[in-house]
Amino acid sequence: MSALPVAVDAMGGDNAPEAIVEGARMAAEGGHGVVLVGPPEQLDASGLEVIPARQVVGMEADPGASVRRLKDSSVVRAAEAVRDGRACAMVSAGNTGAAMASALLRCGRIKGVVRPAVACPFPVPGRATPTVVLDVGANSDCTAAWLVQFARMGAVYSRAGFGVAEPRVGLLSIGEEAGKGSALVKDVFALLDDEAWQERAGARFVGNVEGRDLLLDCADVIVTDGFTGNVMLKTAEGVASVIAEEIIRLADSSPEARAGADLFFPALLGLYETFDPDNTGGAVLLGVRGVCTISHGSSSPKAIASAIGVAHGLAAAGIVSQIARAVTG
Amino acid sequence: MSALPVAVDAMGGDNAPEAIVEGARMAAEGGHGVVLVGPPEQLDASGLEVIPARQVVGMEADPGASVRRLKDSSVVRAAEAVRDGRACAMVSAGNTGAAMASALLRCGRIKGVVRPAVACPFPVPGRATPTVVLDVGANSDCTAAWLVQFARMGAVYSRAGFGVAEPRVGLLSIGEEAGKGSALVKDVFALLDDEAWQERAGARFVGNVEGRDLLLDCADVIVTDGFTGNVMLKTAEGVASVIAEEIIRLADSSPEARAGADLFFPALLGLYETFDPDNTGGAVLLGVRGVCTISHGSSSPKAIASAIGVAHGLAAAGIVSQIARAVTG
Repeated sequence: MSALPVAVDAMGGDNAPEAIVEGARMAAEGGHGVVLVGPPEQLDASGLEVIPARQVVGMEADPGASVRRLKDSSVVRAAEAVRDGRACAMVSAGNTGAAMASALLRCGRIKGVVRPAVACPFPVPGRATPTVVLDVGANSDCTAAWLVQFARMGAVYSRAGFGVAEPRVGLLSIGEEAGKGSALVKDVFALLDDEAWQERAGARFVGNVEGRDLLLDCADVIVTDGFTGNVMLKTAEGVASVIAEEIIRLADSSPEARAGADLFFPALLGLYETFDPDNTGGAVLLGVRGVCTISHGSSSPKAIASAIGVAHGLAAAGIVSQIARAVTG
Repeated sequence: MSALPVAVDAMGGDNAPEAIVEGARMAAEGGHGVVLVGPPEQLDASGLEVIPARQVVGMEADPGASVRRLKDSSVVRAAEAVRDGRACAMVSAGNTGAAMASALLRCGRIKGVVRPAVACPFPVPGRATPTVVLDVGANSDCTAAWLVQFARMGAVYSRAGFGVAEPRVGLLSIGEEAGKGSALVKDVFALLDDEAWQERAGARFVGNVEGRDLLLDCADVIVTDGFTGNVMLKTAEGVASVIAEEIIRLADSSPEARAGADLFFPALLGLYETFDPDNTGGAVLLGVRGVCTISHGSSSPKAIASAIGVAHGLAAAGIVSQIARAVTG
């Protein structure tokens, strides 16, 4: 773990600042260094260090304009804490675009990175390590070269973040065969299928994967453009959430169902835990000169504590310098 | 219902020909006219009419090449039955690409249609009508004009197939605001946001929708390119299927779980029925001069019977001439 604390955007998220401060406290009690960023008088910080920031970027605000205008906002100040060496990483559950823009504008891009990308870990039932999908939203329109670099950064993240020695890289497409998919995907396939690239990346290209492979043990890294990746992420979340709601509703549909649900739900909790975004630590912006972890807007204290732990781990693993080496290598 | 039968590709699908013939029989017993297409000696057709076809396109075969070479294949002959006025529609659970290519090459495109698209109905819990998503796989790379025409065809399908008087059209993107998404999506947004277009289409544009809206009551038609739509479809299927498998596995994780599951599963069956592809009748290829319904490769007899019913309904509603009017209007 880094000796430096993780800077936590105390004002970002649907349940900010209360849930964020509570999560930071949980992390601190677990031995993780944290520093809150926000208006000190609005934070029940007792005992936790605070970097003052008087402004707040709203969840729905325009990211670029907000970061330019709200220079004293909690998310911007958190990024500055990373830039200035006061924190080893930043965590925000606020406006995703604003967190990305703050990290990019304040910390800067890693030399050699053409476009930073957001990587999101997806749980795979029965496997200890998640599948990293990137980009899940930073870049809507991509070139083949960008996707190849996303693959490279994703492999570094899989190795540094989850200990996968030689990550399997899959290319998201709409058919398993090499010729399937969009023009972009066909170009990327040819570039990833190159043995020299795979050797440099310390990764193995496993060809095309499909939407249905997301939660299966098919790849450690799935590469796609930020538009498709974001649709995939939100479709998966949406389907899982509708099913969960229906299960809860059906548990009250009859006395038998209720009695059965009371007996069955403890077992089902394991499944809920597997898919609970609280346990994955959130997405990571790869390619900037600092560790920037982006949590779900609805993050609970536990999710924030988990994200702080992940951020410490990535900082300690030196993911920024590893990516810097990879993209110039 | 059309007086003409529906031509059923008896050799297409993982469980062909047995499951297909059984499904056709179920439909016939329900009063739906059917004609099987396949090698008569391999079909237990007793009582059902058969159009002979000696060849079979494999599930993994190259669609274009197969349709060109296997002129006496069941899927090609089924399309010819539609073209020749021997059947009002075709149903295939075989190679999706081959079904599309057969319908397109034998029946031809509707005049004014730039590209046929595959429309897939998704169930919405608590709503009687499904949400139609298109394109889910026919066209990986699309122009804005194509997507606008997909929206038009999707609105016709929602009205003719499901009785939605003024379908709400949503544009799949990665943010709700007008400016969010890829360059393609921004162009399409401007075109659909035009009141004159909406009036001509008899539809209402509701703006961008996201992946998480798929199973919610946000739109009746969701428009996207065939790459993103296919990823969305397969992600939704994959997530639902992993969750279902995990639920079944966890039911055997302890005696309590088993006892609870035995009581709770009857209620849960309702959810399974809602999402069961057997009940939706499969996807439809819109824009060709014939009704072509494409069922899941793993279709059960019930799924085939349901697809035959849907195909009859679309033929009786005159969906082909409705689309022809729409695209020239």
